[in-house]
Amino acid sequence: MNNDSTGRIIAGVREWIAHAPPGARVPSSRALMAEYGASPVTVQKAMRALASLGLIESRPGVGTFVRSVRTTRPADYGWQTAVLGSPHARIAALSSTQRTVAPDAIALHSGYPARDLLPERLVRAAIARAARTDAAMTRSPATGLPDLQAWFATDLAALAPVGVTPPTARDVLILPGSQSGLSSIFRALVGPGHPLVIESPTYWGAILAAAQAGVVLVPIPSGPDGPDPDDLERAFAQSGARAVYAQPTFSNPTGAQWSTERGVAVLEVVRRHAAFLIEDDWAHDLAIDTDARPIAAHDDDGHVIYLRSLTKSVSPSLRVAALVARGPARDRIIADRAAESMYVSALLQSAALDVVTQPGWRGHLRGLRDQLRSRRDLMIDSLREHAPGAHVERPPLGGLNLWVRLPDGIDVERFVRDCESRGVIVAPGTEWFPAEPSGPHLRLNYSGPDPERFPEAARVIGAVLDEHA
Amino acid sequence: MNNDSTGRIIAGVREWIAHAPPGARVPSSRALMAEYGASPVTVQKAMRALASLGLIESRPGVGTFVRSVRTTRPADYGWQTAVLGSPHARIAALSSTQRTVAPDAIALHSGYPARDLLPERLVRAAIARAARTDAAMTRSPATGLPDLQAWFATDLAALAPVGVTPPTARDVLILPGSQSGLSSIFRALVGPGHPLVIESPTYWGAILAAAQAGVVLVPIPSGPDGPDPDDLERAFAQSGARAVYAQPTFSNPTGAQWSTERGVAVLEVVRRHAAFLIEDDWAHDLAIDTDARPIAAHDDDGHVIYLRSLTKSVSPSLRVAALVARGPARDRIIADRAAESMYVSALLQSAALDVVTQPGWRGHLRGLRDQLRSRRDLMIDSLREHAPGAHVERPPLGGLNLWVRLPDGIDVERFVRDCESRGVIVAPGTEWFPAEPSGPHLRLNYSGPDPERFPEAARVIGAVLDEHA
Repeated sequence: MNNDSTGRIIAGVREWIAHAPPGARVPSSRALMAEYGASPVTVQKAMRALASLGLIESRPGVGTFVRSVRTTRPADYGWQTAVLGSPHARIAALSSTQRTVAPDAIALHSGYPARDLLPERLVRAAIARAARTDAAMTRSPATGLPDLQAWFATDLAALAPVGVTPPTARDVLILPGSQSGLSSIFRALVGPGHPLVIESPTYWGAILAAAQAGVVLVPIPSGPDGPDPDDLERAFAQSGARAVYAQPTFSNPTGAQWSTERGVAVLEVVRRHAAFLIEDDWAHDLAIDTDARPIAAHDDDGHVIYLRSLTKSVSPSLRVAALVARGPARDRIIADRAAESMYVSALLQSAALDVVTQPGWRGHLRGLRDQLRSRRDLMIDSLREHAPGAHVERPPLGGLNLWVRLPDGIDVERFVRDCESRGVIVAPGTEWFPAEPSGPHLRLNYSGPDPERFPEAARVIGAVLDEHA
Repeated sequence: MNNDSTGRIIAGVREWIAHAPPGARVPSSRALMAEYGASPVTVQKAMRALASLGLIESRPGVGTFVRSVRTTRPADYGWQTAVLGSPHARIAALSSTQRTVAPDAIALHSGYPARDLLPERLVRAAIARAARTDAAMTRSPATGLPDLQAWFATDLAALAPVGVTPPTARDVLILPGSQSGLSSIFRALVGPGHPLVIESPTYWGAILAAAQAGVVLVPIPSGPDGPDPDDLERAFAQSGARAVYAQPTFSNPTGAQWSTERGVAVLEVVRRHAAFLIEDDWAHDLAIDTDARPIAAHDDDGHVIYLRSLTKSVSPSLRVAALVARGPARDRIIADRAAESMYVSALLQSAALDVVTQPGWRGHLRGLRDQLRSRRDLMIDSLREHAPGAHVERPPLGGLNLWVRLPDGIDVERFVRDCESRGVIVAPGTEWFPAEPSGPHLRLNYSGPDPERFPEAARVIGAVLDEHA
């Protein structure tokens, strides 16, 4: 359709046909020329297009008629079943954290902060500025915009103790979100059928990416202080795994932060086993009581593969994350990314860099810290008052979530449904366990909308707890 | 660093330390308080941070001193070699089409159109508008923004012949570029170790994605009319493959377009073998002599998995593509995408939809068609005049590239290097063959910058041809 009046005639006649019986006579060329103010050539072109679509048929010397249309039948894709076979992993298409819920519900299930916790003014201005730069019209290098690589490298290098050679811009690979990084790392450094040690509980997205990559998970328990280095030692020795995935800073779901000593001890075990520590620093910018202290800052031997995302602190629409890796592992990951997606939008990179280098960014993070603190405390206090059976082992030091232990014997899925029927949406803890859950848990996001409704939510949770007791 | 003056002191003293000898005495707290106008608490905090980084050490009663620093050693990542083992596929990190070259060179190697062929005004305005909408601050649904899904569905449905139930918005999955779609399709529908029939020559990115997914390629020859359905029949029967990848419209590299009859015949073979046709409609918007006629429009049984990208016609920075699939295959692919990257930036989706629904978009496409035609013809004429040994079997009907056959016996890699040493960058045809090349070829992009230099480039190619003869 490279001619607009032809297109207009086609659309008009199509519309007419939709309401005409099969076999009806189509208006004459003359009538169409008059109706659309079009030339004979244009009308003829439209008629030919309609005929080639099988919508009309012309009977020479008689006229042009609407073709009889086969009635729509319900589609049957059954033939695909045998071709596709059974999936190598049962991957749930949607996590409970990604559900869309009724607008009047109290939503504590999502993994994202509410919009009023985002630097909206900075983001909008940054996008508008980026729209005027080269970034809007050009392709980014495969590893990312050099300035953004440098920013991530410098930010991590500032935390490197003396004697440790800090990463450089070249060690940084920009990603379209950290989920892509997890998939690439698991594919490139572990591989299908190979073991990967993982904290339990841990981030459901990592469990999902591991299932997609076909890696075999080897869970080790991880509490408020992180995993026991002896457990890690044993898991490496018994499984032969050469990599461990962890969130040492404000772990999702527990909010735990490893002490520097614990981090260094874990890194020691990793080194001794010539293994990789995949450090997912997802909540770097979501600190409350302490600051993020990445273990990656202590490594210059290429043992730590470091992931950091800006999606949750800048905007879910500026999906940009960084991966820091050195040595052949870096090359292996870059090759996987090239095959997977080639490069990340320069527009998103440029806008994200703009946001985090504005003078207002530091101020925003300070405000965010205060907001997260008061929301976290309000939710803890509300639960304490209205749902004393919901136990929080240790308040999270940062991040977005409260990890709540329910009394033994509670059916979590039924519990979640009962809360939902009263307008409170919570996430069942089940999704954060790589194997059977160690007990019934809920994850409550205190960074969602409507903190003033936390007491109301806690009352509902308390009431449902009483019913399930 | 949750306090800006603390941060300022740390940065200042770090800077000072960088130029101070190990063991030097650090300025006293009093001096720092004066220099930075900071309180004792703030200075103390900064000192503690510097000590924890190992930069300074305090000797009680004596003072604070710069710690002696271990000198930087060259890093040795050799330990990674055994852990990583040999890669399951040798994936080149960079295609020759992605190379950055000297600014004064004539660049005919890239896979992208020059910037003056892009709708720059529309793109910049669309991004600026998107910056003011919800899309800048919110998360997109996993399958994409409904309006963009609907746009892709409607555009394809308009080409459906009567009796074929056209796809709906629900059948569309929005992707961060079509490369991601190829990876997901190959992983989800074919799988490692399984065969995939593929045209030869064909798009190098598809060959790369297939290598990453570990699928086994089964090449069939494809000329200016597409593959012979009998060849496809044989390949399916002999290999047991249940999928074929093809670019029926303006194939990269040859620019060939299958006739509707050929497309329907291929689809018939695909149907008979209960197989999938993965139709990569990469150049839908890059038509010259004809229009795009996707085979997907003829299928409502879920046999065609259809990919269409806006990256090359809108902007490389608005990386948005669509995948149309129906039945269980669609669910399988969606599950892979969820594990791989969860969702696509709503900002990019919103801006891309804005561009293609502006009144100016149709006009832009018309202008683009004229531009591509004159550039293509100029390059063909230039070669005919100055490099008669460079043979073009049939002028491309659309797309961005000329596929050039060199005389037998020419060493393509050396040929490409010799052109480059004279300032003309061309892509060796080798990368477009899934197996050994059928002969020496070049791919020349006529949509790059500087068409006025095409005659000059053709003269260089002609001269190098003479030398290699």
